[in-house]
Amino acid sequence: MTDAGRLIADMGARARIAAGVLATLPTVTKAAALRAAADAVDAAMPAILEANAADMAAGAANGLSGAMLDRLRLDEGRVRGIADGVRAVAGLDDPVGGSVSESLRPNGLRLARVRVPIGVIGIIYESRPNVTADAGALAAMAGNAAILRGGSEAARSNRAIHAALVAGLVAGGMPADAVQLVPITDRAAVGAMLQADGLIDLIVPRGGKSLVARVQAEARVPVLAHLDGINHVYVDAAADFDMARRIVIDAKLRRTGVCGAMETLLIHRGWPHVEALLRALADAGCELRGDAAVSALGYTAAQAADWDTEYLDAIASVALVDGLDDVIAHIDAHGSHHTDAIVTGDAATAEAFLARVDSAIVMWNASTQFADGGEFGLGAEIGIATGRLHARGPVALEGLTTYKWVVRGAGQVRG
Amino acid sequence: MTDAGRLIADMGARARIAAGVLATLPTVTKAAALRAAADAVDAAMPAILEANAADMAAGAANGLSGAMLDRLRLDEGRVRGIADGVRAVAGLDDPVGGSVSESLRPNGLRLARVRVPIGVIGIIYESRPNVTADAGALAAMAGNAAILRGGSEAARSNRAIHAALVAGLVAGGMPADAVQLVPITDRAAVGAMLQADGLIDLIVPRGGKSLVARVQAEARVPVLAHLDGINHVYVDAAADFDMARRIVIDAKLRRTGVCGAMETLLIHRGWPHVEALLRALADAGCELRGDAAVSALGYTAAQAADWDTEYLDAIASVALVDGLDDVIAHIDAHGSHHTDAIVTGDAATAEAFLARVDSAIVMWNASTQFADGGEFGLGAEIGIATGRLHARGPVALEGLTTYKWVVRGAGQVRG
Repeated sequence: MTDAGRLIADMGARARIAAGVLATLPTVTKAAALRAAADAVDAAMPAILEANAADMAAGAANGLSGAMLDRLRLDEGRVRGIADGVRAVAGLDDPVGGSVSESLRPNGLRLARVRVPIGVIGIIYESRPNVTADAGALAAMAGNAAILRGGSEAARSNRAIHAALVAGLVAGGMPADAVQLVPITDRAAVGAMLQADGLIDLIVPRGGKSLVARVQAEARVPVLAHLDGINHVYVDAAADFDMARRIVIDAKLRRTGVCGAMETLLIHRGWPHVEALLRALADAGCELRGDAAVSALGYTAAQAADWDTEYLDAIASVALVDGLDDVIAHIDAHGSHHTDAIVTGDAATAEAFLARVDSAIVMWNASTQFADGGEFGLGAEIGIATGRLHARGPVALEGLTTYKWVVRGAGQVRG
Repeated sequence: MTDAGRLIADMGARARIAAGVLATLPTVTKAAALRAAADAVDAAMPAILEANAADMAAGAANGLSGAMLDRLRLDEGRVRGIADGVRAVAGLDDPVGGSVSESLRPNGLRLARVRVPIGVIGIIYESRPNVTADAGALAAMAGNAAILRGGSEAARSNRAIHAALVAGLVAGGMPADAVQLVPITDRAAVGAMLQADGLIDLIVPRGGKSLVARVQAEARVPVLAHLDGINHVYVDAAADFDMARRIVIDAKLRRTGVCGAMETLLIHRGWPHVEALLRALADAGCELRGDAAVSALGYTAAQAADWDTEYLDAIASVALVDGLDDVIAHIDAHGSHHTDAIVTGDAATAEAFLARVDSAIVMWNASTQFADGGEFGLGAEIGIATGRLHARGPVALEGLTTYKWVVRGAGQVRG
């Protein structure tokens, strides 16, 4: 076993013990510990800012891009935001102990499926130091132990935040191993986490596409993530022009860099406002890359790869379609099972779209940019998942739990 | 790509198309198709028995064991049982389309999490030909396409059952690719299925431990299974003697070869009936392998490996413990997260056991042999899962579904 493997095995064993304690902590204790952790982060403001300044200086010396430095940068407001985020998690409904289903068998056995924590959650992230607190708090509030592996460029910031967080959690009654930070930041630690089947129950990667792709390719542990958000908005023949214009412009341009942004626009060929919508989108600052019918209207012609591209920029691919079968075929071929929306006044067409589109989130007459745990009322999110099993779409506390069967009898035997 | 890889890729692509159709079939259509399939199996009785006779002759010539030949053997009663099993699945509640949760956001968005099929289920099994129909029916009733890979020794039987099943399903309105049987039975087909990430969404192995171990070790696709059922019964100091005796003897000896059988008995050292219980279990025909305290009473001394052994035989390892902390430590160290039970008249101790034991099924005052989808009221089971994610314990239709988020708006935009 490699050094990193031994390290993760040791951390995993300690996490498992902590998870056993966390699983049975009452909600009030978990919430109090998180509030104490938030206070500790606030109180550690000077140390956190000092550590962050050192990370920033090293990052600048190492030639980090402006965007990366911005993700890394903390100031008083951001640190207060981190603490407030932890407080917000403390206020969320605790799913643990809730009943998924109950039944009474004819032989008198009482069955219940009860929500329990998953166990040990591994979180692998890049330059944003706030994930240290956000993800640790979410995992712990759902009764899980967390093993955090942050990016090397944020190592000092992460250590400072983690030290404050854990001091607060322990003061509030949680075990010291509830949230552990991997003390090395080389790639071997990530590899060891991805292979830690039986030690880590779920990996959540938080970062760019190359991180997520590596995690999905190498992991022996289940992964909760999305690789792409190649999201479609379909403007049906029965769409209202004003609504379509507002939704399409918001879905594409409100923020172009988020995973819920629209990347491809599909419009019914028979809709009377095709040209007006394209013009409105282009006038709002979006580059259009169209199929033959759209490029015939004067827009750039899309290449084959465009339909499979998550631009994360003010660019949209656009195709005209003949109806729902075309739409489904296009999304099946090119979508990433993240978020797809229809704009239409026709309820039957809408319901057919909602039923047939095979994505984690399907929407009718709403912007794809609502794809977010906060907007969905979850209070937070640890990520958005496009896999088919366990949790899909925005994932917060409930997605960090599973269930067990609890059977209560009076001496029943089967024979 | 290997020949097997190409074959599975082609079958997976056809299964995905079939899954798209199955996902939106109404319950009545699915149920009618399953009933037609059951009738078709009944009607194909002569062909199925002829195929099975050929498998049996080849198996005998190839030196299959008596136990394997018994698993392979079909007769009129067994074939009728297969058809009746398919009819029973047709009568189960359909989880697809059910609401997991609903909410209304302050901005008027209406959110629902709706149960949908998982997609494409791969089932890998050994000599029991009934799995062809059982697993295919369960997958299809939950709206999934199935790719079945049975054992080579049952190839003719499986083909005959599959042909009848599919003829009935198609007559009843399902796509022909709803349930596909892999036409080759070499190990390469299994390997290709295990690597078919993105083509197959979930693998269910049905067979012995070596099959499950291989599947768990090699799969890139999520696996729903249990490797071991190292199940514990803890007889607490507050247990009633008669109840403990009945439960322990049933849990161990009703059927020793099932995954829900007790393998290890833990007894509170201070319970006044330790010797009487051990004698009763031994008198019922069970070999006991004990810790120091138990072997001092005249029983065989357990070796270290005994505590980690699934005997599947009339053998039990037995240890005396000092209370719940001991019990939890023992189960954490040696259990397989399948089914563990406590016998006690003390509700507080029972609830602490139910909360702290980290297994898919935990029981109070009931035999571990109830660990079964039918006994749990699920009407059937495709398997029992000891993983931590998605479905745990006995899995039937609901465990073969997932959910998607459905968002209904009135033109809401986020910006």
